[in-house]
Amino acid sequence: MPKSTILTLLSDFGLSDVYVGVMKGIIAQINPQLMVIDLTHQIPPQDLAAGRFCLMSACPYFPTETVHVAVVDPGVGSRRRAIALQLESGFFVGPDNGLFSGVLSQSSAIAVVELTNSQYWRSPTPSTTFHGRDIFAPVGAHLASGVPLEKLGKLIAPDSLVQLEIPVRKVTQTTVTGCIQYSDRFGNLVTNIPAADVAGKTWSVAIGDRLIPSGQTYSESQVGSLIALVGSHGWVEVAVHGGNAQSQLQLNWGAAVEVVLTTAEEY
Amino acid sequence: MPKSTILTLLSDFGLSDVYVGVMKGIIAQINPQLMVIDLTHQIPPQDLAAGRFCLMSACPYFPTETVHVAVVDPGVGSRRRAIALQLESGFFVGPDNGLFSGVLSQSSAIAVVELTNSQYWRSPTPSTTFHGRDIFAPVGAHLASGVPLEKLGKLIAPDSLVQLEIPVRKVTQTTVTGCIQYSDRFGNLVTNIPAADVAGKTWSVAIGDRLIPSGQTYSESQVGSLIALVGSHGWVEVAVHGGNAQSQLQLNWGAAVEVVLTTAEEY
Amino acid sequence: MPKSTILTLLSDFGLSDVYVGVMKGIIAQINPQLMVIDLTHQIPPQDLAAGRFCLMSACPYFPTETVHVAVVDPGVGSRRRAIALQLESGFFVGPDNGLFSGVLSQSSAIAVVELTNSQYWRSPTPSTTFHGRDIFAPVGAHLASGVPLEKLGKLIAPDSLVQLEIPVRKVTQTTVTGCIQYSDRFGNLVTNIPAADVAGKTWSVAIGDRLIPSGQTYSESQVGSLIALVGSHGWVEVAVHGGNAQSQLQLNWGAAVEVVLTTAEEY
Repeated sequence: MPKSTILTLLSDFGLSDVYVGVMKGIIAQINPQLMVIDLTHQIPPQDLAAGRFCLMSACPYFPTETVHVAVVDPGVGSRRRAIALQLESGFFVGPDNGLFSGVLSQSSAIAVVELTNSQYWRSPTPSTTFHGRDIFAPVGAHLASGVPLEKLGKLIAPDSLVQLEIPVRKVTQTTVTGCIQYSDRFGNLVTNIPAADVAGKTWSVAIGDRLIPSGQTYSESQVGSLIALVGSHGWVEVAVHGGNAQSQLQLNWGAAVEVVLTTAEEY
Repeated sequence: MPKSTILTLLSDFGLSDVYVGVMKGIIAQINPQLMVIDLTHQIPPQDLAAGRFCLMSACPYFPTETVHVAVVDPGVGSRRRAIALQLESGFFVGPDNGLFSGVLSQSSAIAVVELTNSQYWRSPTPSTTFHGRDIFAPVGAHLASGVPLEKLGKLIAPDSLVQLEIPVRKVTQTTVTGCIQYSDRFGNLVTNIPAADVAGKTWSVAIGDRLIPSGQTYSESQVGSLIALVGSHGWVEVAVHGGNAQSQLQLNWGAAVEVVLTTAEEY
Repeated sequence: MPKSTILTLLSDFGLSDVYVGVMKGIIAQINPQLMVIDLTHQIPPQDLAAGRFCLMSACPYFPTETVHVAVVDPGVGSRRRAIALQLESGFFVGPDNGLFSGVLSQSSAIAVVELTNSQYWRSPTPSTTFHGRDIFAPVGAHLASGVPLEKLGKLIAPDSLVQLEIPVRKVTQTTVTGCIQYSDRFGNLVTNIPAADVAGKTWSVAIGDRLIPSGQTYSESQVGSLIALVGSHGWVEVAVHGGNAQSQLQLNWGAAVEVVLTTAEEY
């Protein structure tokens, strides 16, 4: 069975304008054989933290030869660099503004280039406002079609990349202090506390003066009640069975969350 | 012309998170030749009635070998069964919670299985919160790729499936009493009264103390006026020309609607 | 590399119902080899002006053999004509209500037909409310599959087509008076004043008693400040760096905008 290379798209362009359709038109003209899959285009406008989380969450479910084009780009047209990365988890193309700091935290960088070779752009003189169309989509399509990463520009050091700061998680014997790093469509609040921190433990989540019990699945709690669990993405999350934890708790990105641990043995 | 099998996706996952993109990544790795078509992912969260209606409305426009993967799944992780169905109208994969009761009302069941064979899942130990990714998408992809239904699990009786209760429609010589079963993007209120009930008759719709005249098309009424007609899905609906009947009438799912019939001969 | 013909879809059907999925089911059964690309389905309901702009903006990024099926159709079921157009920029299928007046202003018509040959419809008796499914999608799929335009119906004169009126732009030595023709997801207000009108000039935009300076890129202005620039679509637009100009200025379609010109030489 012949296998198409997958090119994914993630952006904050939304679906009400034609920006995404235009990128697909550009990609189809470079290589109509690519399989284009939308991760999401509804990252809140210019919300790098949400873009970082969504990209990091999706990439493990794609083959490592996949090219992920990600465009949340408040600095478009400024001096921020345009980059392409080869990580162990896949290839990535987009702006150097911290959008890739999540995937970089999970997977080693093999090579990173600054996109300086305009031969692979839509034209040598890109617009100042839509590099998704003029640089990132065409570069992604060429990369997915076999153009070697090194041809796209000049090699740069992975540790020179812009990082998105996220509050550091602190682990003690009895607590893990972290923060909310994402809120999904269902209002489930995803923390930056990984499953490994609570595995084999009895635990609950403290937010303000509430103590939220942990469970395995939403339906374990009563309808309307808060429950903490390890979400499908592998992070501790806080949810409401049949409801919306974000609306109920009014917590936003970066809000502090504490996991209170009790080892099973203590019982 | 070689023909790809179609796999459709319907869910309440929305498009702002990466849940749908992740399912497509899983499917593409099982069989990149499948043609994946989104029915909708914007079923209101956990709204089985809307999911049931949308699936039932879309399925007649697809070949009967199509595999429809549908995930509106408030009971994910609980003891609700995961199922696959072969109906005369197509193949269906998803939770046993009433989501398929619409298509079952329109088409005979050839075979139904409970998904117990984890060989066709993403892994033998699925998450407790995202069976769309871990069970339904991979099972759908294998089914669309030629795995026989019987291999997916154990045969169960079609009449053991969970049904979604919808108020029963009552037909007399002069009236049909039914209810609203769906409201679409345009605010058109779709009833559960089929076209056949009004064919060849003169009729109008009574809602509360309003009597809404029937017509053939939206533009027959004045802009801003209510009109009743048989919608493109084959059900009596109430619409506002150039407006939104749902906003104007504030009727929700299950609200009572009466069609008042006058046979043409009476005139 | 074998090349699929592209068929694009643009509509006001939204993504919460199954209308778009149903059109894709119809298209796939006519020709599964077509590459279907969504331009957008989130044109505000029945907003011909937005549909006109979006179609005109996207079409230059597609090959000229592309078939664009566009359905914003408040008059569906009335006597408005159904048409197919061959322009120098591509093929177009949809209702004759002004939706194509943008692409017609940018590209010459080679031939236009009224869709009278029901052989290429889903059935000879289409519904009165969903011509996207019953006429436009199947006709588009047949056209993209090689059916000659002339076979779809009877030739009509391009100058008989319905035009969408948009305030005429007025150019003097020192000013260009135009209007807002679109507001995008980011709240960027797009005028009907083309890049050529300001090329090589020093200019600013006057709206009410505000004077908005021009720049090359969003990030040139301070966060929260208004800036005027030539957008990626080639029109003068007004934006807010990191914000939403539409919310801030509360301007809608048709609102007057004046560009104040100063030639570089005057400085």
